[in-house]
Amino acid sequence: MNLVILGVTGSIGSQTLDIVRNHRSEFNVIAVTCNKNIRKLREIIVEFSPSYVSIGQSENIEPLKSEFPDVVFEQGKQGLIGAATYKSDSEVLVVNALVGSAGLEPTIEAIKMKRNIALANKETLVVGGEIIMPLVKEYGVELIPVDSEHSAIKQLIMDKQDDVSEIIITASGGSFRDLSRNELKSVTVKDALDHPNWDMGQKITIDSATMMNKGFEVIEAHYLFNMPYEKIKTVLHRESMIHSLVEFNDSSILAHIGNPDMRVPINYALFYPTRMPYTGKRLDLVKLGALHFEELSYDRYPLFKLAIEAGKTGGLTPTILNAANEESVYLFLEGKISFLDIEEIVGECLNIFKTDLEVTLHNIITLDLRVREYVKNKV
Amino acid sequence: MNLVILGVTGSIGSQTLDIVRNHRSEFNVIAVTCNKNIRKLREIIVEFSPSYVSIGQSENIEPLKSEFPDVVFEQGKQGLIGAATYKSDSEVLVVNALVGSAGLEPTIEAIKMKRNIALANKETLVVGGEIIMPLVKEYGVELIPVDSEHSAIKQLIMDKQDDVSEIIITASGGSFRDLSRNELKSVTVKDALDHPNWDMGQKITIDSATMMNKGFEVIEAHYLFNMPYEKIKTVLHRESMIHSLVEFNDSSILAHIGNPDMRVPINYALFYPTRMPYTGKRLDLVKLGALHFEELSYDRYPLFKLAIEAGKTGGLTPTILNAANEESVYLFLEGKISFLDIEEIVGECLNIFKTDLEVTLHNIITLDLRVREYVKNKV
Repeated sequence: MNLVILGVTGSIGSQTLDIVRNHRSEFNVIAVTCNKNIRKLREIIVEFSPSYVSIGQSENIEPLKSEFPDVVFEQGKQGLIGAATYKSDSEVLVVNALVGSAGLEPTIEAIKMKRNIALANKETLVVGGEIIMPLVKEYGVELIPVDSEHSAIKQLIMDKQDDVSEIIITASGGSFRDLSRNELKSVTVKDALDHPNWDMGQKITIDSATMMNKGFEVIEAHYLFNMPYEKIKTVLHRESMIHSLVEFNDSSILAHIGNPDMRVPINYALFYPTRMPYTGKRLDLVKLGALHFEELSYDRYPLFKLAIEAGKTGGLTPTILNAANEESVYLFLEGKISFLDIEEIVGECLNIFKTDLEVTLHNIITLDLRVREYVKNKV
Repeated sequence: MNLVILGVTGSIGSQTLDIVRNHRSEFNVIAVTCNKNIRKLREIIVEFSPSYVSIGQSENIEPLKSEFPDVVFEQGKQGLIGAATYKSDSEVLVVNALVGSAGLEPTIEAIKMKRNIALANKETLVVGGEIIMPLVKEYGVELIPVDSEHSAIKQLIMDKQDDVSEIIITASGGSFRDLSRNELKSVTVKDALDHPNWDMGQKITIDSATMMNKGFEVIEAHYLFNMPYEKIKTVLHRESMIHSLVEFNDSSILAHIGNPDMRVPINYALFYPTRMPYTGKRLDLVKLGALHFEELSYDRYPLFKLAIEAGKTGGLTPTILNAANEESVYLFLEGKISFLDIEEIVGECLNIFKTDLEVTLHNIITLDLRVREYVKNKV
């Protein structure tokens, strides 16, 4: 299998390479992209010899070109699309581990080349679900989720979608699950990045703390499993051992359980539909002792509520939600706004940018840029 | 679908009829058997009009014959086999809800007529697994478990048996899970019949209290899923909400969760492989709050240990185990021996009746009778 890995130096990209290392004869990494981590990219080029490499910033290209004369280098958005569509005579799986709505266009172009997608970039479906899912059908490709929750749901539903009465997505509660709304006023970036269960990238860790991430996941589940929002529930599950549950119409609930290790859903996506052995740490239920469930509060997590509402509204509303969130999270990570400013700004943008325009790639891109500019200009 | 229901007046038989009532146009009850509950049997004949009825004791036959002149009546072992093989032009599913090793022969004869079996009678596989499973293969029939644990496991494994690394069977701990070994000396029949989670027949409720039932289930799982004993684990799970779990070789654990309601696995078995809607009480995870796991102790439950050892030894050893247990449980229910006498007697029989004879139906029946006689003669 030929692999394209978009976002190869990030958390999911790196763990994808861990799986590839265990199965060197099965995979051939033909194209990769990275934003800024050139040091790590250099090691990856040496180890995996991709033919095509795209990077975020052009000033890094020339030294790389002279170091690796056999590799084609590209940059920016064109490079992402170039990697996703990099020519190959045999089957290609595109692992989309990009961060943010930058993942949308390369996914569209890869689908048009009839390539299956292992999708870790949830913003692709959040902003572009209405475009992506018809394309998936039209081109007959597989969109295999890499999120632990959606991988769990896919494994539980199999081909029995018509029998599902409810999807139950679990949420750890994020870094601040034990803090009151009042205590959130003074949290730092360092606090926010200290997730209780999962070791993930910075953007998604902040999204977990605000619970925007869980809202994204509900929207993603809506599109991936063609499920009305009324049938998608969420539950606070502190241990992060149950990755999600599916209730069937005979009242049976099936659950996917295991240690929080992203290599499990990555492994599942890379070998889908085969379930390839993975020597991860086994979960010992007796040692664990108990699995807990609590209600996930809308009031405690206003961004979660905004996300679900945006999903239900549909159209370009999730684009506004996502663009405002993405830029706010970056501003928070740069120390320019406070944690609670994120929800303020997202709420404000949802009011200001309301639109009835059609969901087209052009409209998504235009609106996305406008919202980002607005947020950036606030500080 | 034509249905034969063996043990129609028992707990599983009655709940099977509950499901049939919800789908009257889908099922036709052609034959039923009952041991002693003639009053209930009479109501069932009136409601479901079976053509063939077998009862345990012959003195009840004549009045029934004159009351229902269009029904064929039979009795005893011949009647069980007669029901299981009762002629039909269309497909027949045999629901075996008998208690004890009496379930073996009718199952064998039904399989030979290429009939699928919904199996609630676990003693069939405990004593006859080495005969039954080759027949299932030879005649190409489905053996669909009705036990909540095995139904759960079947739903979780689907056709991915080769990917399974471990089966984890949950145990509630039975009526006496919070009593010490010392406190067990003085328990009464009434205490023993008070199961914390499940409303079941008397025999199986006692077997749950001694944990013999869980031992039987391990043996049953060994045969049903062709799984070595080393790959079958058990875990104490007080809530009885997780009906069992399956670990796959990629470290994913899938679980089957729901309120303890036997109609769910019965519904699953009757409509297999379709998952037919069932309007049972939905499980609310938040209201439940937590699912707990503890080690299941061999020392606390010596009959559980003896059962697993008998299963591993194989041959006719499970026949000795089961016959000694069945008769001891009846003596306990009749108030003739104490609760702890059950394990004494089973242990003694396993020592006395050791044999290397081949597993044939004849040898099972002969040894079964000898062990029963021995136990009966003790009081």
